[in-house]
Amino acid sequence: MDAAAREAQGGLEWRVTVPEGASVAVEHEAGAAARAWAWALARVAAAWSAVAGFAGKVWRIGADDPRRAVHGLKVGLALALVSVFYYTRPLYDGVGGAAMWAIMTVVVVFEYTVGGSVYKCFNRAVATASAGVLALGVHWVAGKTGGFEPYILTGSLFLLAAAATFSRFIPTVKARFDYGVTIFILTYSLVAVSGYRVDELAALAQQRLSTIAIGIFMCLAVAVFVCPVWAGQELHLLTTRNMDKLADALEGCVEDYFAGGPAQAKSGGYRCVLNSKASEDAQANLARWEPPHGRFGFRHPYAQYGKVGASMRACAYCVEALGSCAGAEAQAPEHAKRLLRGACARVAARCARVLREASRSVATMTASRALDFAAADMDTAVHELQGDMRSLPSTLAAELAAETSLMDTMPVFTVASLLVEISARVEGVVDAVDELATLASFKQVDGDDDDDGKKGEAEMTMKVHPLNEPDTDVEAPSPENQAAKA
Amino acid sequence: MDAAAREAQGGLEWRVTVPEGASVAVEHEAGAAARAWAWALARVAAAWSAVAGFAGKVWRIGADDPRRAVHGLKVGLALALVSVFYYTRPLYDGVGGAAMWAIMTVVVVFEYTVGGSVYKCFNRAVATASAGVLALGVHWVAGKTGGFEPYILTGSLFLLAAAATFSRFIPTVKARFDYGVTIFILTYSLVAVSGYRVDELAALAQQRLSTIAIGIFMCLAVAVFVCPVWAGQELHLLTTRNMDKLADALEGCVEDYFAGGPAQAKSGGYRCVLNSKASEDAQANLARWEPPHGRFGFRHPYAQYGKVGASMRACAYCVEALGSCAGAEAQAPEHAKRLLRGACARVAARCARVLREASRSVATMTASRALDFAAADMDTAVHELQGDMRSLPSTLAAELAAETSLMDTMPVFTVASLLVEISARVEGVVDAVDELATLASFKQVDGDDDDDGKKGEAEMTMKVHPLNEPDTDVEAPSPENQAAKA
Repeated sequence: MDAAAREAQGGLEWRVTVPEGASVAVEHEAGAAARAWAWALARVAAAWSAVAGFAGKVWRIGADDPRRAVHGLKVGLALALVSVFYYTRPLYDGVGGAAMWAIMTVVVVFEYTVGGSVYKCFNRAVATASAGVLALGVHWVAGKTGGFEPYILTGSLFLLAAAATFSRFIPTVKARFDYGVTIFILTYSLVAVSGYRVDELAALAQQRLSTIAIGIFMCLAVAVFVCPVWAGQELHLLTTRNMDKLADALEGCVEDYFAGGPAQAKSGGYRCVLNSKASEDAQANLARWEPPHGRFGFRHPYAQYGKVGASMRACAYCVEALGSCAGAEAQAPEHAKRLLRGACARVAARCARVLREASRSVATMTASRALDFAAADMDTAVHELQGDMRSLPSTLAAELAAETSLMDTMPVFTVASLLVEISARVEGVVDAVDELATLASFKQVDGDDDDDGKKGEAEMTMKVHPLNEPDTDVEAPSPENQAAKA
Repeated sequence: MDAAAREAQGGLEWRVTVPEGASVAVEHEAGAAARAWAWALARVAAAWSAVAGFAGKVWRIGADDPRRAVHGLKVGLALALVSVFYYTRPLYDGVGGAAMWAIMTVVVVFEYTVGGSVYKCFNRAVATASAGVLALGVHWVAGKTGGFEPYILTGSLFLLAAAATFSRFIPTVKARFDYGVTIFILTYSLVAVSGYRVDELAALAQQRLSTIAIGIFMCLAVAVFVCPVWAGQELHLLTTRNMDKLADALEGCVEDYFAGGPAQAKSGGYRCVLNSKASEDAQANLARWEPPHGRFGFRHPYAQYGKVGASMRACAYCVEALGSCAGAEAQAPEHAKRLLRGACARVAARCARVLREASRSVATMTASRALDFAAADMDTAVHELQGDMRSLPSTLAAELAAETSLMDTMPVFTVASLLVEISARVEGVVDAVDELATLASFKQVDGDDDDDGKKGEAEMTMKVHPLNEPDTDVEAPSPENQAAKA
């Protein structure tokens, strides 16, 4: 900007021919003009850079997920298809001037995901039909009463609108029929009120219904057949992606703590998990409206993803606390950290492996023993860590008494305790994923044995798995645990 | 149900007169009828209890917050007012058949909060006007080209709809103009497409605008003047309520841990805080549309409430970890807990007091020194706790060596570390509240000194406040801290 301003000033001075005597005034004027020019240039440059920055941001939004741009084109396509009804004489004569309802329907029901579109289409169709029938009935009754018609119609409108609006505060209605309630009130108002003037009320209602049906048909056809975005799949992806991020963050936080260096980029991944509830709920809500598609069958247990998400959030809260330990100013001395470093890193690595296995199991929709093995390894590592924690005093006494006091190890002990708690919560994630696997009938892989004793055998195999040291005290699985996992 | 079934069966048998010979067949029939009757009764009873349960739930939704029921009545009132336009001949003649736009406007723009209604009204008005003007312009240009008119109109519709739909993925647009984009596409489609048929296009657009204006006027009048619900106030209340719950939960968790009994009800209050982000964001978004009202002036810093909320959530994550310590199965022995019990309880109580003071400061919109004093007390308690933690080995050596090993105290140490971390995060809440106080110009209370040196003096007063022990090592406030607080 400065350079531009100076250049502009120079350019102006060069062009001004200064007559004698008037030099001061002209120079002053030239200065003011130059300043104005420079100011304008600076504004233009600032505006340009703002526009360029904004354009870059918009471009990135599209480049990050090209389906967003495709979604825009899909809406345009659906609208263009519907507007054909207006331009084609025979079609237009068929539905009459009510073609605008088809356009309106496409504009308001077309959502990013198929589930969202189906939800709105269903709500719009059912609400329009039921409100139309009800309004016709009330209108017929009111017509019999003679002069009271406006009062009855307005009164019923008032009562119905109040009741319907209040019903939106009921959680189930809010989650599944919110849009339908709006359309119900809207249709009832239009039919009941306009019924006072328009004679062919039934024809109006029928016209409206048929045009809405055209709009819904167009909208669903484009949503399902042109690059569909399934809410269920988005939810599925969100869940696995968050699980991987959580695994990375867990490893990263422990590495950060023991390395003592600056925080790695991946350590912050748990933050995505912390605030994922709203989008998970929204997507699970929309996904239940979707027809079977790909690996997502009829009645796929989308609600269970919410439970998996909740277990991941519980885990993320603890990882957050762990991360703040890593970033704390008061740190344990290096030699104190060294005592539990190996065991802690092992627990973190195995917890992360369990999360990654769980993520892979969800992503591929298979239930494999690898997850059970990984969980067993994690248990072993946790028991080792707990053993190390218990034997700290003797370790200190034996080797390091001179150098390190037990007090120094206390912050490390806190980190280790958090890791033990995290591993318990990772178990919670595994349980939620196991339940999802049961509900969604994930395919069993590497199943070379009978199907019945599989789980029990996996539990037994833990103890002889090569990664497990034979002397660790793995607790026998209690009946409740097995019941919860099965 | 069982009783009803038996009674029903008895009743039937009593009434059947059994003729000789036919007794078996009739009894069989009577049995079937009785079973059917019992089944029907059971169904009715089940249905009745389901209905009663649902009704009770709905009643509680209304009783919990009667403003919800009032909201329903308000919507009914606005609709009834608008429908007067339809029934009153002179008014009807004024706006023509387009009165339905007024009804439609009321139905779709009336939201629970004033901010929500203003947001929708503004978006609807601006989007309708701009799309109408644009459509008229395109229509005029297309009219000059002769036969290409439908192609130009459909093409422009396609492009505009695609671009507008894509723009909804831009966060700012999504947050503030989402509804406006829908209405923009809708109006453009209607005017551009119907323009091909309807001759008086400008009259249509003008009619639509004036009826929408009537709808908006009705809607805003009812929303603002009949028991208004302000989004800003809701956000304000949510923030203070969450702060109080967090304070209760913090105290409750520490009490639970040291008492070792079952968890108290109040200990779970942090859960409301954990998932509050979505509703906070939504309310802050709507609140910015609201006109000044009550203590909420023009440009009230609603965005800052989001930061206060974020700092509370950071705090709640740690409280969650603390709560899981209290609920853990492996507990430190009672005599080990006793060592840090006093200091821990003090820190928890003072952290809770700071949170309550902060909540009171926000609730009353006053900046008082009480918050600074409470924060200073909290610091003192934290330093005492840290001192106790450091001197644990010597304490143990002096009094309890025989009974307790240092190892036993380690779980308590973890709880204490978490408390120290929580107090640091409570500081974060205080900083956010201080910033809110500055931005929203909270009234200074108990200000008997000059306004300038107040903060510095409050910092100094900490050290001689009667609750502070003179021998504790309160760190001198660093310049950065003061800058952050000011």
